[in-house]
This record gives sequence, structure tokens and C-alpha cells, in this order.
Amino acid sequence: MIGLKSRTWFSAMVCVALVILTFVVSRTAQGQQADRWYPSRWGANDQRGAANRITPAKVLEAKNLITRGTVYQVGRTYEPGMPMFGTRHYSLRIPQAFKIAGTNQAIYHDDLVSGELGQIGTQFDGLGHLGIGDLFYNGNNRTEFAQADGLTKLGIENVGPLFTRGVLLDIARYKGVAQLPDTYEITAADLRAALQRQNLEIRPGDAVLIHTGWGSLWMKDNTKYGQGSPGIGLGAAQFLVDEEVTLVGADNWGVEVFPNPNTSLGAPVHQLLLARNGIYLHENLNTADLARDSVYEFAYIFVPLPLKGATGSPGSPIAVR
Amino acid sequence: MIGLKSRTWFSAMVCVALVILTFVVSRTAQGQQADRWYPSRWGANDQRGAANRITPAKVLEAKNLITRGTVYQVGRTYEPGMPMFGTRHYSLRIPQAFKIAGTNQAIYHDDLVSGELGQIGTQFDGLGHLGIGDLFYNGNNRTEFAQADGLTKLGIENVGPLFTRGVLLDIARYKGVAQLPDTYEITAADLRAALQRQNLEIRPGDAVLIHTGWGSLWMKDNTKYGQGSPGIGLGAAQFLVDEEVTLVGADNWGVEVFPNPNTSLGAPVHQLLLARNGIYLHENLNTADLARDSVYEFAYIFVPLPLKGATGSPGSPIAVR
Amino acid sequence: MIGLKSRTWFSAMVCVALVILTFVVSRTAQGQQADRWYPSRWGANDQRGAANRITPAKVLEAKNLITRGTVYQVGRTYEPGMPMFGTRHYSLRIPQAFKIAGTNQAIYHDDLVSGELGQIGTQFDGLGHLGIGDLFYNGNNRTEFAQADGLTKLGIENVGPLFTRGVLLDIARYKGVAQLPDTYEITAADLRAALQRQNLEIRPGDAVLIHTGWGSLWMKDNTKYGQGSPGIGLGAAQFLVDEEVTLVGADNWGVEVFPNPNTSLGAPVHQLLLARNGIYLHENLNTADLARDSVYEFAYIFVPLPLKGATGSPGSPIAVR
Amino acid sequence: MIGLKSRTWFSAMVCVALVILTFVVSRTAQGQQADRWYPSRWGANDQRGAANRITPAKVLEAKNLITRGTVYQVGRTYEPGMPMFGTRHYSLRIPQAFKIAGTNQAIYHDDLVSGELGQIGTQFDGLGHLGIGDLFYNGNNRTEFAQADGLTKLGIENVGPLFTRGVLLDIARYKGVAQLPDTYEITAADLRAALQRQNLEIRPGDAVLIHTGWGSLWMKDNTKYGQGSPGIGLGAAQFLVDEEVTLVGADNWGVEVFPNPNTSLGAPVHQLLLARNGIYLHENLNTADLARDSVYEFAYIFVPLPLKGATGSPGSPIAVR
Repeated sequence: MIGLKSRTWFSAMVCVALVILTFVVSRTAQGQQADRWYPSRWGANDQRGAANRITPAKVLEAKNLITRGTVYQVGRTYEPGMPMFGTRHYSLRIPQAFKIAGTNQAIYHDDLVSGELGQIGTQFDGLGHLGIGDLFYNGNNRTEFAQADGLTKLGIENVGPLFTRGVLLDIARYKGVAQLPDTYEITAADLRAALQRQNLEIRPGDAVLIHTGWGSLWMKDNTKYGQGSPGIGLGAAQFLVDEEVTLVGADNWGVEVFPNPNTSLGAPVHQLLLARNGIYLHENLNTADLARDSVYEFAYIFVPLPLKGATGSPGSPIAVR
Repeated sequence: MIGLKSRTWFSAMVCVALVILTFVVSRTAQGQQADRWYPSRWGANDQRGAANRITPAKVLEAKNLITRGTVYQVGRTYEPGMPMFGTRHYSLRIPQAFKIAGTNQAIYHDDLVSGELGQIGTQFDGLGHLGIGDLFYNGNNRTEFAQADGLTKLGIENVGPLFTRGVLLDIARYKGVAQLPDTYEITAADLRAALQRQNLEIRPGDAVLIHTGWGSLWMKDNTKYGQGSPGIGLGAAQFLVDEEVTLVGADNWGVEVFPNPNTSLGAPVHQLLLARNGIYLHENLNTADLARDSVYEFAYIFVPLPLKGATGSPGSPIAVR
Repeated sequence: MIGLKSRTWFSAMVCVALVILTFVVSRTAQGQQADRWYPSRWGANDQRGAANRITPAKVLEAKNLITRGTVYQVGRTYEPGMPMFGTRHYSLRIPQAFKIAGTNQAIYHDDLVSGELGQIGTQFDGLGHLGIGDLFYNGNNRTEFAQADGLTKLGIENVGPLFTRGVLLDIARYKGVAQLPDTYEITAADLRAALQRQNLEIRPGDAVLIHTGWGSLWMKDNTKYGQGSPGIGLGAAQFLVDEEVTLVGADNWGVEVFPNPNTSLGAPVHQLLLARNGIYLHENLNTADLARDSVYEFAYIFVPLPLKGATGSPGSPIAVR
Repeated sequence: MIGLKSRTWFSAMVCVALVILTFVVSRTAQGQQADRWYPSRWGANDQRGAANRITPAKVLEAKNLITRGTVYQVGRTYEPGMPMFGTRHYSLRIPQAFKIAGTNQAIYHDDLVSGELGQIGTQFDGLGHLGIGDLFYNGNNRTEFAQADGLTKLGIENVGPLFTRGVLLDIARYKGVAQLPDTYEITAADLRAALQRQNLEIRPGDAVLIHTGWGSLWMKDNTKYGQGSPGIGLGAAQFLVDEEVTLVGADNWGVEVFPNPNTSLGAPVHQLLLARNGIYLHENLNTADLARDSVYEFAYIFVPLPLKGATGSPGSPIAVR
């Protein structure tokens, strides 16, 4: 334990360092102002992010894409044996039947479900799912809004129904393969080229789905499916940000390429889309039927399961054509 | 213990009774043949029931009702404090955050959910939910298909997306009240009168939603909400069967009147709709916004959460206009 | 459809068969009386089975075995990665911390657990767990007592604390191996020989634990652990029944040999012990420390977790010496 | 935004404050050293706390109290309808029965359990349950050891079996009432007087159970039971700390008086016992039978359910006499 006198001297020395440090920090802060990513463009109190792009006009634009009355279920069935991350679990049980009093012999079954429902199987990532340090979308600090009983901000119940124009980009076909190679990073150039090949454009508020072919491993080779995956990189993600989409989905488990080619980064595309831009992710989709039928433009419809304070949502989006 | 001799005599006596009984039973069986409710009209192997009525043409009919781009969320938020039946439960927890390795400080939250998910809150009853004795839709015997790991037949994953014409019948307004009286039985005449007042007709494949006003008790007076409720009786249900609807929903917990005016019957409307006719029920809806805005005709869109082998589904249907 | 007349004739013919059948059945029933396994020796209303054998005198007998004050924990830790049967699951999560109002900064964690708790990891099988057809211990019919909310009879809460003399039979050492061969059936002769080698006797009310060495595969080779296992066969089980034990435990997943050498039988030892004799099973024990230290006689203490209406119990018995 | 020049000046001013602050802080730190509560007396790496007091000699001391062979179950049954704190839940369901292949018709039931198992019903608080700010027993920081999959330190599996001398202090009888008044603070003087009345002493390593009579409200008046409760205050807790007990239990929900008479404090007794002294709490006990029979000294036996990384444990301790 050092004495009081030497401590006071030590403090004085710290002062000199502090003056210098303050100068440096103030300059650095100026440089970082270009990186200031909140408040969001929808205001400091917004909790819906890019869902705000879905206006009645956008709904009508999407509705007008429905010309055949064909409905594709783009989500997967939840069942034992599906790939799951880490120690997440899924359990469904049918309890003993209940008999209802009466001469008409009514009898019924319930089902009991347990699991990380917003983060297993086909899953929709909400804005409270992933952040940068403690900061999430709109600068919300997780130490304040993440409570045991549910998120008090950015809960999935804020999103509301999504009824918008959907676009499928078949990157596998563009590359001439059934399945993109392991850990292939889809680039902005890939997206542009696929759009050109498919004679399409992306418009603000769209739901953009990426077909990588990786989904064919689902419940066929769960180990390979989960170890890594092709997916969009930061460049492609920035392209989608610039196009002002509402949602990016894919037939892999994380939408983004994993691991990131820059191995010092973990889930940077999640951060770019969710935290910085309020753009949603839809993971573990089944885009095979759309790709097979070359259905590239459709009404994308999804209503997040409104579990109050949840970070994500299970459920199957549909593509209607 | 009676002796062998007296037993043989007893058997002989039983024979006389048996001959008479056989005669009586054979006649009764003839009478019951009019009541033979399976196989279903969609064949002995069908598991989708009235969802089969939603054809591409029906999808287009529904889509053409979308003229304003307004989306109503007709389901309720799942949260602690919502009314629940018996010992069913709902729990959502946000576990400790996970940190992802990397210089970019990615951090994420999961959510852990547990409950009778297909049978709490806004819920969609599948064909494996309720039966008559051991027989369910299409004569399937529950002792065969109801397994601990999930229903091996009639599971909710068989239903598929529902995109159809929706009709709201505001019975409360027709009766000139904000809320129908406790245990009021809505009759076929009520439905016909409301249709006339609203200048509407029901068509095959429709989703018919009933506004009783009972939903205003939700989380306001859970005890009253759950003790009984106004709802459709057998007559109204038969009318909807004859109109060949796909689904009946309401802003109460069981769609049907409870208790049934015939107190010897328990949940007879469930049996008529689900088991005998493959028509789905959508319970605990929030129809107040539709009623307030007099939105009586719309596209009803719902995708049951495809939990393999489940008896029902949570989730929020939407009414798009 | 046959006519009424021929039906009446048919019934008459059935009568002849019936008289004969009645005669045969009455004789067969006499033969089966030797197999009548209920009511139990503790009366028709008993729900505790062989736990009744633990009297205050038995507690004192067990207590007198405690001479060193050494406590062995004979159960295993519950954790992800432990072997589990079929689609059973185990999940533990630590939710976000709760802060308590006050200047003293109290903060706390809960834990959220989900799983087939009475039937995963170290588990104690209650009398409501397994039966013969629909009949369980004391002839209770599962269609009556097995309700969705819990068993209304034979629930684990009826057992009460078990404090009795425990005996470890080290069959592996008797056979001169570290681990009994796959699917080895332990016979009554094996038990007798091991008792002789260990210079011990079994007494009424004892908890008999079997060391097979199979437990060394736990979380080392779960696949092998669960595929089959050495264990007691029907002969050894009958020997233990005759010795009037209260409980049989082992370091394998089912106590009994699996598969049974008579491949037409599934879990027959469970039926003999639980259903016919009210004797409990304790599975997935860790008997390695007892075997290593040659601790063959001890106070066995276990309190089933009193989950009302449960079929079994998790938890770690102790052997005190 | 202030200019760079003024910022540098500002820093200089901060320096002066800093020098003064350093001086003050260094003195204050000296004063607080008396309050330094970690490392624990069992070393900086200890995770078992006062369980370390239970030596083989202590086990033998406890065993010698067993003279009649009477076993009291001091825990409560877990069931729907028991009082629970906040949004914690408990659910048990019996799934559909499983049939095992074979001619012997084996059939079995599982049970599915979900809930905050270590923190509902009769519960044993581990050292990872509650802390002071972010600091828990032995100075462990919760931001390091509290992980989603379980506590990586202070998990309940570290405690091990507890077999020790138990003492019941019947404070209600000492006060001449069946039930202590609402929010009555039990003082050190009360404990001493009760000990004298019961002609007992507390010894190091003991499990001390407090009978308040509050337990008679269990499932009779859950609202009253949970609103507040009589219990020990800081003075009584410090007395028990000084007596070097291992565990304090009571027939109320938090052992300590609630709310604390010093209303600026939340759960201070938990902090004193768990965090500062590694002494465990056992809550929601049923001490009525012991009190009725005047059983004041006994072997207290409890094995925490070893759920890896859990904060507490369910289960029923026993008092053996």
C-alpha cells in the first residue's frame, strides 16, 4: 500500500496525462461523428425500424404482384432433429387428453411447447436480438431494456404485420451451382449481377430473400449446415442498406457468411442491419420452391408472433404470387 | 364364485338377450347411418379439412378485397396476465446475454418460451384438438395418432397458409349493444340478420369472424371473461357448416356459447365444426378495430405456426383491406 | 348389408359359440388366479409400495451403519450433454438478473429449468411410471389416474423420504472386470455369489445398488451407454423381490439388462418390480466411488422431489458410512 | 460543442479536483477495509461457503441425534396453486403414454416439468442467487460467472450433500402466538430467549430452522403469505453468523422479515448471509410438524438437486430424530 504523499504526487502526474488524453479523445470523437448511428432516421423513440417503410402504398404494390393465387410457404416445420445452435432446445409434447363433462363425449388435446422460440428453426430476428457492445437499435442500452420478463424496448410485438414486395435473388443459379461453396461471401456485385440476370430491381421497403442452396442440408447434414455457411458479406449488406430494404432473408442459419472472411469480426452483418439500420433478418428459410419455380417477385407476408418482449419470432412467411 | 354348471346356464340365458339385442342394434344402426360423419368429403386420408376450400381462385378473390392497403392485426399479444384456461401456462424469459468473439463486440439475447402454445392467447384450433369420444376429424382414432412426441395425424403442420376472404359479423352492433350478454347464444337467425344489415353474403371457403364485444374484458376482468361467454350455438354453427366456410373466429375464448344452453352438452360446436366438418376455430381474437371501422369484408391471412404434430397454433391473423 | 333375418340367425349361431367360450374362459380364469398380482400386500388403497418396508426400526438399523461420517453422492449432475432417451430434453437458463429496490443494491438470479425431470439423468422411477397394459401397481388403471395435470394416484409425492440400509453389489468386480460386457444379464446366481464374496446379506426394506461399471461411459460414449446395457434379468429381479427389498438401483440407464435376452419382452423387470411388487428403481447412479472404496453397506438416503402427480423424481441419493 | 481550447482548460481544472479526490478516496478506502468481505474464510477459490463446516465429525454428531427413527419431511409438495413470486411459474404435465414393443405390453408415462425450479416452492438459495451490486460470495462478479447456460461459478452443484445437526427455534411459541404478526422482525434477543426456553445451544455448522407460524397461510391465503412476512432481521442474522451456522431456514418465503423495517433496504439479510458469509437459506419450509411435536434437535439432511450452474435447488429436507 503506497503512502498518502506518493498518492497525491501520482495524481498530479495523472493530470498531465489527462490533459493530453482529453485533447486526443476530442479529436477522435470528431472523427467518429461520421459513424454516429443513432438516433434512427425514424426518430429517437422509434422501435420498428425498417418496418416503417411498409406503407399502405407498399401493401398495394405487393398485392398487385398476386396474379395467380399461388401461396408458397417459405418457412420450415419445427420438429425434433432440426439443426439448433449451441444448447438451444425445442420440445413439444402432447399431454394426456382432457375429457369435458357432458353426454356428447367431448375430449381434447393440448400441446406443451418449450424452447428458444424466437431463435430456433425458421426465425425472424427482432431489433432487440443483437447489438454492438451494450447498444442496440436506436442506441438503446441493453442494461436498461433487457429484463428477465422480456425486453421493455424493441420487443418483437412492436414490429407488426409485414406485407410487402418480396424479391428472391437466386445467387446459386447465378453462380451456376446448386449450392454455393462453404463460407462463400456473397458480394454486392453478386447481388447486382443476379438482379440483372433476373431482370429485377430492389425498391425501398422490399423483403429480399437470398437463395444460396445451403438449405438443402437441413436435417440432411446438420453438422455441415451449422459449421459455417455461404451468405452475404458486409459489402452486400451495405448495398441492401442503401437500397432501403425492410428485411433480408436466406436459406441459411444466419443470412450472413459465416465465418466472416475478416476473422476478427463476429456477426458484423447482423450489427450493420439490425443495430445500425433497423433492418430485419429472416433465417433458416426454405427458398427451394421459389427458386425451382423461378418465382422472383411476390407478396411477402409475415406476422411476427407477438410474444411481448421477445427478441425474435418463429413462424413461416409466405410468398404469394 | 358360481359353479361351472350355473355359468353355462347363464350363458344360454344371455343368448336369448343377445338375439333380441342384435335385432334392436341393427335397427338403431340403420337410423344412425344418417349421422355417419366420416370419411370426410375430401377423402378418407385428408388431414386439411376445410382448408381445402381455399383454392388459387379463392386467394385471388380475397386479394381483390385489398384496396386501401390497411392491415389490421386481429390477434392479441402474448403476455403474463392474459386469461388462461385451467392450469395452462405461459412463460417468457430473456436469458443472460451471449457475447460473440470478435473485435466488433457483437452481443445477443435469446428468449425462452414455455407454454401450451397452441391453446393459450389468440389460438387456432387444429383438427387434432378436439373429438367425439376417441374419434376425431375423418374418423381418426386418438389412441392411434395422439403420441407423446406429437400427433402423427392431423398435426397443425398439415393446414398450410390460409389466405381467403374474411367476413366480420358484428352481432353486438346488430343487437344494439357494446357487448352481448353473458352466455348469450348467437343463433342462425342472428347471423342471417347481421349479414342482411351489413349487406353481405357468406361464400364457400370464407373465414367468418364474430364480434361479440366480449373481448373488451381481456386483461380487464379475466375472471368474467373466462367464466362463460356469449357465442354461437349449434344452430348458428350448422348454418356456417351449410355455407361451407373454412374457419370461424370470435373475440371470446371458445367461439361457441359457454355454457351451452343444453347443459348436458360440453363443447358441442367444437365437435360439429372440427370433428364432423373439418372447419377451424380461431379464438381470443381482437375484432374491436375491425368493428370500430366497420370493416366487414377483407383478406383474412393466417399461417399456422408449423409445430410438427401440434393441436393448434398461436399467432395473429391479419385482416387486409 | 345383410338382412335382418340372416342377422337373427347369425346371433343364434353366436350363442352356441358363446356357451362354449364361457366354459373355456371360466377355466382359464381359474388358472390365472395364481398370477393375480393385486391388490398389493399393503392393501388395495396403498400407493407407497415397498416404501412401507421402511419402519422406524429400519431407519435406526441404517443409522447404525454410519460410523465414519463419510457421505457419498451417488447421483449425477444434470447438464447439457448427458445421455437422454428418445426426444426427452433438459434445459437450464439463467435469465437476466433482477434488481431489488433499495440502497443496498441487492440483485439476484433465477434459473429456468425445463425437461422430463423425473425421467432424465439420475432418476427414481415411481409406481405410476410403468405398467402392464393399462394396469399399474395395485391394479390401478392408467386411463383413470393418468391425467394431464399429473397422476391422481401413484404420484411420486406419495413415496416420502427413504432412509434405509443400502447394499452395493459389485458384480463387475465379482466377474473380475471393470465393466460388464454389453447386454450381459446379471443372474440370481451372480447376486448370491457377490453377496457371499462381500460377506453380506440382503434384508427386507433394503436399497440394493448394483455396480456394473457401465456408468464409466456416462458423457464419454453416450451412444454406447444408451444402445444397450448389462443389468439384472428376471431371475435376479425375482430374487430381489423374494428378499423383499424396497429399491433396486444401478449405474446403467434402466437397472435391467437391455435388450432382454428374451427379445419378445420389453422392460419386463420394470413390470415385475414396479407394477407387481411396488419396488422402486433408481437409474443412472454413480456407484463408482462406493465400488472404489469397497463401501458395501451404508445408510441410503433419498427424498423424492415431491412434484405432485409426477411419475418419477430427479435427485441424488446419498450413501452415508 | 465546446472548442478544443476550452476543453484543455477544462481538463486542467479537472486535475485539481482529481488531486483532492484521490486524497479523499484513499482515506475512505482505508475506512472501508474493515468492511472487506472477501476473500472468504475458506479461501479465494472456495465455492461451497458454510457447507465447509459440515465435517465427518459433524455428520456423526447429527447421526447421534437419531434415536427414534422418525423422519419428518420439512419441504412442501410442488403443485399448481402454490404461492409464487412475480412471474415465476410451475408446470407439470403427463404426456401421452409410450408403448414399448413386446408381448408383455409394457407402457410408461413421463412427466414434463417447467419452472424456475430453484426459486419456487420449498427452495434452497445457493451462493450464486443474490449479491451486492455485481459482487457475490467470495467477491465473484456476476458479469463474469452468470452465463445463459448456467453459472460458471457458485453453481448449486458445488454445495454437495448436507447432513448436519438441525435446530428448530419456535419463535411463535416463545411469543405465545400461533403465528407471528405481519412483518414482525425477529431479533437476536428473540433467538437467544427461544434457545433458553428450549434449553438448546447453536453450534458451528448447524442448520437453524425458524418456526414463525406464517406457513399456515400456504395455499390458504397466498396473497397474504406473499405480501410480507415476519422473519429474522439483520440483528438476528448477525447472531447466526457469529454462531457460524451453515444454513438458516424458515416457514416463510424469504427467511428474513419483509419488508425490512429499514425501508431503504431490500433483502439485506440475504446479502449478509449468502454474499458476505456463505450461509445458505432454505425457504418455504413446512416446520409445523416439528413444532407440534416439539422436535427441536435432529439430523437435518438435504441434498441440493445438482443442476449444473443453477442458483438454487428445489427439494424437501428431512429432519430425522
